[in-house]
Amino acid sequence: MTTLTHLLTDDARGARSSVIREILALADTEDVLSLAGGMPDPATFPIDDLVVASSAAIRDGSGAALQYGRTEGMPELRALLAHRFGDRCGRARTTDEVLVTSGSQQALDLLGRAFVSPGDTVAIEDPGYLGAIQAFGQRRPQWLTVPVDRHGLDTADLEASIRRGARPKLVYTVTDFQNPTGAVLHPDRRRHLAALADRWGFVVIEDDPYGQIRFDEPEHAPIARWTDRVVSLGTTSKTIAPGLRIGWAIAPPDIVSAVARLKQAADLHTSSLGQHLVADLLSRPGWMAARGRSLGAFYADRAEILRTALTAALPGATIEPPRGGLFLWADLPGTDTRALLPRAVAAGVAFVPGSAFSPTDDGATTTLRATFATLAPDGLEEAARRLGSVA
Amino acid sequence: MTTLTHLLTDDARGARSSVIREILALADTEDVLSLAGGMPDPATFPIDDLVVASSAAIRDGSGAALQYGRTEGMPELRALLAHRFGDRCGRARTTDEVLVTSGSQQALDLLGRAFVSPGDTVAIEDPGYLGAIQAFGQRRPQWLTVPVDRHGLDTADLEASIRRGARPKLVYTVTDFQNPTGAVLHPDRRRHLAALADRWGFVVIEDDPYGQIRFDEPEHAPIARWTDRVVSLGTTSKTIAPGLRIGWAIAPPDIVSAVARLKQAADLHTSSLGQHLVADLLSRPGWMAARGRSLGAFYADRAEILRTALTAALPGATIEPPRGGLFLWADLPGTDTRALLPRAVAAGVAFVPGSAFSPTDDGATTTLRATFATLAPDGLEEAARRLGSVA
Repeated sequence: MTTLTHLLTDDARGARSSVIREILALADTEDVLSLAGGMPDPATFPIDDLVVASSAAIRDGSGAALQYGRTEGMPELRALLAHRFGDRCGRARTTDEVLVTSGSQQALDLLGRAFVSPGDTVAIEDPGYLGAIQAFGQRRPQWLTVPVDRHGLDTADLEASIRRGARPKLVYTVTDFQNPTGAVLHPDRRRHLAALADRWGFVVIEDDPYGQIRFDEPEHAPIARWTDRVVSLGTTSKTIAPGLRIGWAIAPPDIVSAVARLKQAADLHTSSLGQHLVADLLSRPGWMAARGRSLGAFYADRAEILRTALTAALPGATIEPPRGGLFLWADLPGTDTRALLPRAVAAGVAFVPGSAFSPTDDGATTTLRATFATLAPDGLEEAARRLGSVA
Repeated sequence: MTTLTHLLTDDARGARSSVIREILALADTEDVLSLAGGMPDPATFPIDDLVVASSAAIRDGSGAALQYGRTEGMPELRALLAHRFGDRCGRARTTDEVLVTSGSQQALDLLGRAFVSPGDTVAIEDPGYLGAIQAFGQRRPQWLTVPVDRHGLDTADLEASIRRGARPKLVYTVTDFQNPTGAVLHPDRRRHLAALADRWGFVVIEDDPYGQIRFDEPEHAPIARWTDRVVSLGTTSKTIAPGLRIGWAIAPPDIVSAVARLKQAADLHTSSLGQHLVADLLSRPGWMAARGRSLGAFYADRAEILRTALTAALPGATIEPPRGGLFLWADLPGTDTRALLPRAVAAGVAFVPGSAFSPTDDGATTTLRATFATLAPDGLEEAARRLGSVA
């Protein structure tokens, strides 16, 4: 067979398979217990509600759930999302400030194309979200890495870098139960970051996939409360079901229009059926609030089971008690977790080494990320035992 | 409110709203009868089958229809598509040759990113498919336009351009019931194009969204029968429902892998629910064949109604009798159809002027595209009358 790979662009040839991808491959092997991916437990999916919603959407006389739709998204869904986010921002948001995307991964890809030219500076949490590193990385930016502590992105460090001459065009942060560390961006830092954006003219991308899965942590206002130099991302992947691929970006209308033009060439529009299902569920009074409480309780239990099991299995480890989200972050002093991974997989357990969460991926670290979202309690305990046997 | 548009990249600022987009906007006004878009009549959607399939998929114990999935697509769907296309190619195709995409528009976007660097030559039919012009246009190619007659892309003209020095990297063609002209690429030209690809080392992208909606036209083998320097695109947008956004690309495995890496950063994977619905329907023996026959009969009637009505309303026009697909192509000698459009919309009817289907969009033409897919028979007849009143 002819090979066509020599015709690929340098970018396409250079695109590496990410760790996320390898993770999904690993997690697919039955004899490996995976703490690696962030796949929600299917037991949490709202099956009955989705069956009712899908039958209603498909049978709807207009055919709209099966028809071509507007690139910006289904108007009813955009209005619902604008209304909900407006409540959190403390100021009304309008339908034309919402772009529905094919998962929030697509929002990251489109925002990279919209804002980043090769060589532009993109500031990102280190450790930070792999999918964002991958999406913005395609644009060949100059990375400005900003450390993360338990109060989230270190805005003082960011400001110091700027005062030394760095000029980020975008600053990306996961505000609530950050991936991978689980940190929550402190309210003071949200205001500080907003002030820096206004002062230095960059755009903040605040990504919040986990905010509704909170254990004891109070809810904090989004960065969009304090500045309009921000694009706020959301998704139903963690709260309803990832397989629907429904995400969104909330931004000033002129940015929504510009990004929608890119989306039109990228995939015309997001699944009409998926949008109708989400709009149906979000329109039910109290549905999402009840769901958030239920998911919070479910995953708080799972988190505690994994934390207890790992604490027993890894005596020297420091494990931050998770306050929400799907991940637990551990530090194993003296252990190179990248070197540990193959031994762990051989012992039947997978995790993600901390080094994977850096755009530079430069060398050994002693940290790892483990999810408590996927395995049932006995699986979490067995996974911890297996990890302890090789660590 | 702050404006952030000055931070957009040149590409994002330059991305023009396409005619497709304006079309969808126009078609949304109740007092305009639209012959412009290519929206299938919702009466053709397989509602009952989709309700059964969606309930089964959502209730499936594995949760797979709601869970994260592999970037390349659902294995069962890929296997079904490989098998079906293998039959048409006359040689077995394998699962790893199939990439499921979020509509075939996403395949065009990803293939542009995979193969086209700025300045590379892309050959495209003129007139040709707008979505392809838009997707490849983002990569700022040098366009090589190739004329189309009733036997499709003029491969002799393409060869002459190559012999004069043109070096296309990609050649894009809609093989069956071409958008916008309705032409079918002649079997001799399919073989000729395959031979040119082998001789000159370019990649053919054969796009076939309409092939199953055929009136009296016999089925022809795809170009992939004659060469493996080809990426073959398909979609269920015209045969099942566009709102599901399920398309695919069939290509050598190394190309599928490379494009999947780009897709991972673009949207992680295509809707699991949509893939499960399509896999369910395609796995039912004879389902798609029966559906093709039914859609062919339905749209053949509609095509004849519109052709008859337009022939009466536009006495000087030449209208090629459609052999399949969703569109009718008309030539109105002496009429600048771009200038006609605003008058037509004022009279309550929309169409797409022929000039829109060229990457250069250079000036007046006397042609127009009209769809018979969207309006019911009385709407088609009234639309033709309105057009006749201003033409």
